[in-house]
Amino acid sequence: MTIETVAIIGAGLIGQSWAALFLAHGLRVQVQDTDPTREAGLHEAVRRAWPDLCAVGVAEGEPPTARLSFTTSVAEACTGADFVQECGPDRIDVKRLIVAEIEATSGKDVVIASSTSSLLASEIQHGARHPGRIVVAHPFNPPHLVPLVELVPGRQTAPQAMATARAFYDSIGREVVELKRDVVGHVANRLSSALFREAVHLVAEGIASVEDVDRAVRHGPGLRWALMGPYLTYHMGGGAGGFRHYMDHLGPTQAARWAELGNPVLDDATKARLIAGVDEMLAGVDDSDLVARRDSGLVGLLKMKAGARGDGD
Amino acid sequence: MTIETVAIIGAGLIGQSWAALFLAHGLRVQVQDTDPTREAGLHEAVRRAWPDLCAVGVAEGEPPTARLSFTTSVAEACTGADFVQECGPDRIDVKRLIVAEIEATSGKDVVIASSTSSLLASEIQHGARHPGRIVVAHPFNPPHLVPLVELVPGRQTAPQAMATARAFYDSIGREVVELKRDVVGHVANRLSSALFREAVHLVAEGIASVEDVDRAVRHGPGLRWALMGPYLTYHMGGGAGGFRHYMDHLGPTQAARWAELGNPVLDDATKARLIAGVDEMLAGVDDSDLVARRDSGLVGLLKMKAGARGDGD
Repeated sequence: MTIETVAIIGAGLIGQSWAALFLAHGLRVQVQDTDPTREAGLHEAVRRAWPDLCAVGVAEGEPPTARLSFTTSVAEACTGADFVQECGPDRIDVKRLIVAEIEATSGKDVVIASSTSSLLASEIQHGARHPGRIVVAHPFNPPHLVPLVELVPGRQTAPQAMATARAFYDSIGREVVELKRDVVGHVANRLSSALFREAVHLVAEGIASVEDVDRAVRHGPGLRWALMGPYLTYHMGGGAGGFRHYMDHLGPTQAARWAELGNPVLDDATKARLIAGVDEMLAGVDDSDLVARRDSGLVGLLKMKAGARGDGD
Repeated sequence: MTIETVAIIGAGLIGQSWAALFLAHGLRVQVQDTDPTREAGLHEAVRRAWPDLCAVGVAEGEPPTARLSFTTSVAEACTGADFVQECGPDRIDVKRLIVAEIEATSGKDVVIASSTSSLLASEIQHGARHPGRIVVAHPFNPPHLVPLVELVPGRQTAPQAMATARAFYDSIGREVVELKRDVVGHVANRLSSALFREAVHLVAEGIASVEDVDRAVRHGPGLRWALMGPYLTYHMGGGAGGFRHYMDHLGPTQAARWAELGNPVLDDATKARLIAGVDEMLAGVDDSDLVARRDSGLVGLLKMKAGARGDGD
């Protein structure tokens, strides 16, 4: 089935960003939100995203607003939709209500892909009429720029739904990572949480400041992580012998380091210390345009990586 | 004291790369290695690094080989040096022997900065004649491109030595992060190890493949980490309420995720599984030029970030 029309349920930050991306790829986009005042924000977000989508070579001209519609009715948004991107609040009771509404009006073969960052596909599909077509498709903020989509099946998800979703996201230039089963935090947020736990430990123990931890990341390993993941990094760390050599010779060093990592508790004192550190880091920084600066950095990165392509994907 | 001449003890990958960087910044560089055959490799490494250093605007013209000397004698390399960058093997007995040799011929105010990734400054300075001038200055591979230098005092390090080292690395365009005390893995390698531990868990548990974990990083959070560290990322995740809002509302979610993170053991079965995954990822990939591709990616990143500067540093 060719996907020409996509319904987006929920017009928060993630739904708005998906809408811009889908429009850029020529799709008809039917957005729903229970709050009618979000229609203006949706159009504004698409307008803001458009120049960046043009800059990375995905869009051109003006936003095709004729292909974008807004409604407060889930049923209306799903009418005629070939694919549903669900972006509602991350509460399981709300998700299940939304799924029931979608199922009331969508053809049973239409894939329902949830953008959830914290819930499991197995939980969301529990009690659904056609649980087999429900998947998690978790983007990274902002979805119209960061290419990663984590595609996760629940226990009842049909292989066909995974295949359809995979083909869809591939067709709109996403970098799809397929998990074998659902797990809290998927892959990328688990890795981010692992990093953050140690970042909290280092500040809580007075080893480094918040600002210096952030600087260490973006002027150090973060530069490499934009280009290569941890496995390729350690493969290169093994020299001519590669990852096997690294494991044989430096595996014990890694294991010893793991044993030294911190296990901080987010109690009030620690939270206060972290908040003070962030305040100090941002003192004198105009943070009104942090989003614009992040997005402009991401556009630069994506253009740079596209120019240097030949890295195997 | 103005630093005009630097001794580098050890001409492995890290020593070679420091040499190129120091030369690019107009310094006289006196390199020592016990293996005389490494002289040719040193010159070759400087030649290879030079175009990248020119591309990022640090160097120009041809490598100034007249300012680069090589010797097998620590004493000779340290004669007249205003600063010593120690890059020997990461074994404490070897480090202490090297320090003793350096101390035999260096003025007592000359800072000895160790590039060690796994040893503590306090251990290295133990038993030294002038332990106060010994610091750890850990770069990230390759030091001539990745700006981060982690500057770490040992228990006996003099504040003056930290100040001198800080001023030196600042003067050659490094992004210096000062740790308050020494801890295994400094900051960046602890963060990298935390990330890697979870990356191993995800593969060992069959949740995702090696290749997909790496893809998730470089197409997802890794892109952001090249631009901003974890604290700024979560500050932005808190929306208008910033990091405080994030802590209050999503702190419990983070803590719950920490409790779910894996604690893998690098036993033979796990190592074999990881190695097989890396082999699979690299099947059909020409990995003869991985270093050149990494460096070209880093050059692109650094140029992009320099162009977008205004991020507060």
